[in-house]
Amino acid sequence: MTNAPVDRAWASARDAASPLGPRRDLFVIPDGTVYLDGNSLGALARAVPDRLREVVAREWGQGLISSWNTADWINLPRRVGDKIAPLVGAAAGDVHVSDSTTVTLFKTLVAACRLRPDRDVIVLEPTTFPTDAYVTEGVAGTLGKTVRWCDPADPASALAEDVAVLALTHVDFRTGAMFDMAALTAAAHDVGALVCWDLCHSTGAVPVDLTGADADLAVGCTYKYLNGGPGSPAFVWVAPRHQGSLEQPITGWMGHARPFDMDLAYAPADGIARMASGTPPVLALSALDAALDAFDGVEADLLREASLSLTGYFIDLVDARLGDRVEVVTPRDPALRGSQVSLRHPEAYGVVQALIARGVVGDFRTPDVARFGFAPLYVTHTDVYDAVEHLVAVLDGEEYARPEYATRNAVT
Amino acid sequence: MTNAPVDRAWASARDAASPLGPRRDLFVIPDGTVYLDGNSLGALARAVPDRLREVVAREWGQGLISSWNTADWINLPRRVGDKIAPLVGAAAGDVHVSDSTTVTLFKTLVAACRLRPDRDVIVLEPTTFPTDAYVTEGVAGTLGKTVRWCDPADPASALAEDVAVLALTHVDFRTGAMFDMAALTAAAHDVGALVCWDLCHSTGAVPVDLTGADADLAVGCTYKYLNGGPGSPAFVWVAPRHQGSLEQPITGWMGHARPFDMDLAYAPADGIARMASGTPPVLALSALDAALDAFDGVEADLLREASLSLTGYFIDLVDARLGDRVEVVTPRDPALRGSQVSLRHPEAYGVVQALIARGVVGDFRTPDVARFGFAPLYVTHTDVYDAVEHLVAVLDGEEYARPEYATRNAVT
Repeated sequence: MTNAPVDRAWASARDAASPLGPRRDLFVIPDGTVYLDGNSLGALARAVPDRLREVVAREWGQGLISSWNTADWINLPRRVGDKIAPLVGAAAGDVHVSDSTTVTLFKTLVAACRLRPDRDVIVLEPTTFPTDAYVTEGVAGTLGKTVRWCDPADPASALAEDVAVLALTHVDFRTGAMFDMAALTAAAHDVGALVCWDLCHSTGAVPVDLTGADADLAVGCTYKYLNGGPGSPAFVWVAPRHQGSLEQPITGWMGHARPFDMDLAYAPADGIARMASGTPPVLALSALDAALDAFDGVEADLLREASLSLTGYFIDLVDARLGDRVEVVTPRDPALRGSQVSLRHPEAYGVVQALIARGVVGDFRTPDVARFGFAPLYVTHTDVYDAVEHLVAVLDGEEYARPEYATRNAVT
Repeated sequence: MTNAPVDRAWASARDAASPLGPRRDLFVIPDGTVYLDGNSLGALARAVPDRLREVVAREWGQGLISSWNTADWINLPRRVGDKIAPLVGAAAGDVHVSDSTTVTLFKTLVAACRLRPDRDVIVLEPTTFPTDAYVTEGVAGTLGKTVRWCDPADPASALAEDVAVLALTHVDFRTGAMFDMAALTAAAHDVGALVCWDLCHSTGAVPVDLTGADADLAVGCTYKYLNGGPGSPAFVWVAPRHQGSLEQPITGWMGHARPFDMDLAYAPADGIARMASGTPPVLALSALDAALDAFDGVEADLLREASLSLTGYFIDLVDARLGDRVEVVTPRDPALRGSQVSLRHPEAYGVVQALIARGVVGDFRTPDVARFGFAPLYVTHTDVYDAVEHLVAVLDGEEYARPEYATRNAVT
């Protein structure tokens, strides 16, 4: 592109005019850091430390066991779920938050398969996040189902009357490409199959309308764009029409209709509460609860507009400044992309490390992808401008080739 | 008993002489509270708030994604496990901490069944904590196994050549009675079965020697006597001889041999790490990690001696002051009891509520049991003395009959 708005003053003016601009102050962004990894670990909301101090010192320290009632810990999984619900087009009362994303995916996929007991196939999409593949293979092995890999370019082509569940990731973790939720859900329903949506890379950055898409089941991560903190628990949503016949495999006391009766026979709770298993993780849920307040009153359209403005500006700048020195692997069509931009470069690992050394935090995904996430609540257009300036310098100076980047460290 | 040491000065002298006495100062015990519910939710260790503040403000807030490496978040499940290992007679490197107790039990029971694929029966003990029963029934249903209920007085009598796994709770949550781990493990091995031990009510209060008992698999709660905080994650131990062939059902990226290679095919990690599923819950693990330092250097024998002294004193005082006005349902034989004493009374719910109103916190278990837990690191003999004084007053004044105690609230 030749008309890219490459001027930093333009970026600054754009930020000043953004209705979400003031939300950035709700977060801690370290001095000198351009944080473009909120798609991996969201930034710390300023409300979180105070809330945790209160939960630990007063509720736990002073209230002790009574806080299960007096501080309403027992209902945190649903209360936090109610804050997530509007971000994914769900009704209050239909979202539950408790276990890790992997565990929640397992429970949800098993429950989905049990809703279609006469069908033997789970369709899986090969560009999915690996843990989704591991979980799905594990579920298939445990239940005696078969996994059928589909074409990422056309997942619906793998659908047939033998398919119980189509397991799809809404936004691709590597490329940022986004599936059409409504169209693929409709295609699955046409053959009587269900879709289990992984919303890890969309919730909090991309409009999701589970109700409008007539979706069946969905699981999402809360430590990415929802800023719940490292390893915070996942959420699960199940369409009300399926809740009454839902049978998840990890039947524990918190999913029981009357947990404190201590009956030896299991009787599932009504509604989404039957997705619960063990005692809720109160500290993690409290941090997430406080972090979610940053979304209070934010319209999905505003979030999307801000996200697309940031990713579009980043792509424009990369095109203008770097041309074909990197490959933009994220769809240029706004309708097809989430809230990240991924660049392919043979030295992507070193590029990411050199950028981090300069204070621009993105991440690397094997084998050759540098990922940059744009959390619309706290990333600005000036961040984008500065990030590309640093990227140009890293490539111009071949900083990626430094010997200290030769050994790859684990990064998540 | 007629010679019970009913004198408060005796209790105070006993506390002053206790080698564990100074440990109480490591915990926050609210003014005016006698806390006898550490078997449900352990008290707050003073080290926890500082540690959480550090993890949140510095590691998460400033370190952001880099803290997975620089703060070694990625190895928290094993590092915390290494602190638990000496408390259960396990070697370092063989304990993993990650998911809720219920989820961990599910994974461990499935893995146990898969170690005995040709056997169809799981033996379950009917006084077990209800969630253990729900999970076991769930596992049986998922794997096509049969549950055989055993006689609580003689679980070994249900063992036969068709038994894959005997699922037992080491210390009974309701009565505080303790099974003989070594003897029952040997009985199971005699018929080729494995034992999965639930250590929720023993770890941190009762000596556990998994290695010495030649045990197979064990799961334990960390928010009771280990003081990890509300809903803190459970630990799992698997005997080294089983680890190489262990197949747990929730195969996620954190249990993969090379998580960051992002292979689509699952390859389990070596050792206990293959019990991992999702991203570790860093905030909860950090709180637990700090809380466990209170056990640093505490010998298991000292812990047991303190525990038995407290429970024995409580029983003696109850006998001396209340005679047959309550029934002690916990074994009087020290070898057969954990670290709690349970009293049966037809108005147990009201008794517990009236005691709480007086600052003595125990809990109620349906239908008629008042439970009192004695966490040996912070409960004192004067606590015991004061608790029984209040109990006498509650019974004498029939405080349990107050109308506000007619409606039962949920308590955990």
